[in-house]
Amino acid sequence: MAGTLSIVGVGPGDPELLTLRGARLIGAAPVVAYFCREKHPSQARTIAQAHIGPGAEELPLVYPFTTEVSVNNPAYHQNMSAFYDQSAERIAAELTVGRDVVLLCEGDPFLYGSAMYVFDRLHARCHTQVVPGIMAMNGCWSQALTPMTHGDDVLCVLPATLPEAELAGWLDRADAAVIMKIGRNMPHVRKAVAQSGRMEDAMYVERGTQGAQAITPLAEQEGTAPYFSLVLLPGRKRVR
Amino acid sequence: MAGTLSIVGVGPGDPELLTLRGARLIGAAPVVAYFCREKHPSQARTIAQAHIGPGAEELPLVYPFTTEVSVNNPAYHQNMSAFYDQSAERIAAELTVGRDVVLLCEGDPFLYGSAMYVFDRLHARCHTQVVPGIMAMNGCWSQALTPMTHGDDVLCVLPATLPEAELAGWLDRADAAVIMKIGRNMPHVRKAVAQSGRMEDAMYVERGTQGAQAITPLAEQEGTAPYFSLVLLPGRKRVR
Ligand SMILES: C[S@@+](CC[C@H](N)C(=O)[O-])C[C@H]1O[C@@H](n2cnc3c(N)ncnc32)[C@H](O)[C@@H]1O
Ligand SMILES: C[S@@+](CC[C@H](N)C(=O)[O-])C[C@H]1O[C@@H](n2cnc3c(N)ncnc32)[C@H](O)[C@@H]1O
Repeated sequence: MAGTLSIVGVGPGDPELLTLRGARLIGAAPVVAYFCREKHPSQARTIAQAHIGPGAEELPLVYPFTTEVSVNNPAYHQNMSAFYDQSAERIAAELTVGRDVVLLCEGDPFLYGSAMYVFDRLHARCHTQVVPGIMAMNGCWSQALTPMTHGDDVLCVLPATLPEAELAGWLDRADAAVIMKIGRNMPHVRKAVAQSGRMEDAMYVERGTQGAQAITPLAEQEGTAPYFSLVLLPGRKRVR
Repeated sequence: MAGTLSIVGVGPGDPELLTLRGARLIGAAPVVAYFCREKHPSQARTIAQAHIGPGAEELPLVYPFTTEVSVNNPAYHQNMSAFYDQSAERIAAELTVGRDVVLLCEGDPFLYGSAMYVFDRLHARCHTQVVPGIMAMNGCWSQALTPMTHGDDVLCVLPATLPEAELAGWLDRADAAVIMKIGRNMPHVRKAVAQSGRMEDAMYVERGTQGAQAITPLAEQEGTAPYFSLVLLPGRKRVR
């Protein structure tokens, strides 16, 4: 294929947290692709908006409805797999005719990013480059003014989708920890943090670096949490 | 104090991996501070150089000689603590007379960054903001074209300064892992990775995103490693 695929991390929300390289590539791109849900603006596109050229073609990759199929149903994974196949082919069609494509991705592309599924399908077939992005976690810990790791602290990045007991086990062992993908998993996240005796130090950050940012101690955070939220546990080895 | 302290992460080496916000703040700063070793250019300053204003005052914070004192000697920590006290006071002197200071930091300031020791000493006394930076790990995994975490993979960030057995234990449990601070710890890093049976998947990245970047399988990497190097172990739960 004649075109180049650039997978660009756009950071956690604040448009100024784009890298100079990301902004340059987006500005020069004839085709800008991004994932989104039906009738919802793409978060990644909103972050990158000011840099998208007036003549650029946009390629929205709209997630299939998954509300009727449970994540525990194999059909869910088949649907998603077919969707990523189609998304990769739509991008490949542009690259084949020699048009470069920038695929936008929230945060960093290679940390739990959907763009990885496109990368896995295309990188053997086309020239691919990846531009790192500020991750949600460092966007959030900067805003929360929370230094995370000193000395030989170990940092564990934990998805809240893990079972409660597993999560609590990781929190026991880790010096510093970040819990991502909170959303509907909030009740068992709260229990796992309490169980590990670390509630006092846990900070909750919602929509970090975005307009509606909220930062509170996890202990004071009641009720549910939105998709864009995480929990920070700073390391234990402060010295010097 | 009338001035604002901005701690700015400048990323792992490629000057284009600065954020738009970082570049703007550096360009506007009357005082630019950075850590460095005697007679060595500061890596963070080199990355930020193009943005430093012609009229800016520079404040190099030169690490004390530590070659004669072992890290295991309490005197080492006393020396470093005194050095961070002095560094904080030099910055405070500028802030007191109303001059804003930008303190540059390699990668992200709050992940094993020296700037944290200045932050800890000053943030209760002055207005402080922190601008996240691209971390060495995501600069490196982007260059190595290595997706790291899928689904509910756990990512562990491990300092090579941990004892070999502890490191091996973490590698057994972690899905994805990054080993930082390699340098003279290379021999036991290699043993710990071999012991955990993960040598086949381990990538070694030296001076990632910098001019002299080298990326090789860890199994093929012989001899010692420089300070600017890390090891990547991608997650185990690839799906879809
Ligand atoms: C699918 S992961 C994508 C992570 C992203 N690629 C990164 O590098 O951070 C989505 C999760 O990231 C976290 N997240 C993303 N943006 C966030 C923000 N602005 N504030 C808080 N958490 C955020 C939430 O935990 C969310 O559930
Ligand atoms: C004191 S830590 C600072 C980490 C930094 N604050 C960050 O966010 O990545 C220094 C370690 O970071 C890693 N590192 C920094 N820059 C690097 C680069 N360009 N390539 C590979 N490793 C790097 C090395 O493991 C090094 O020993």
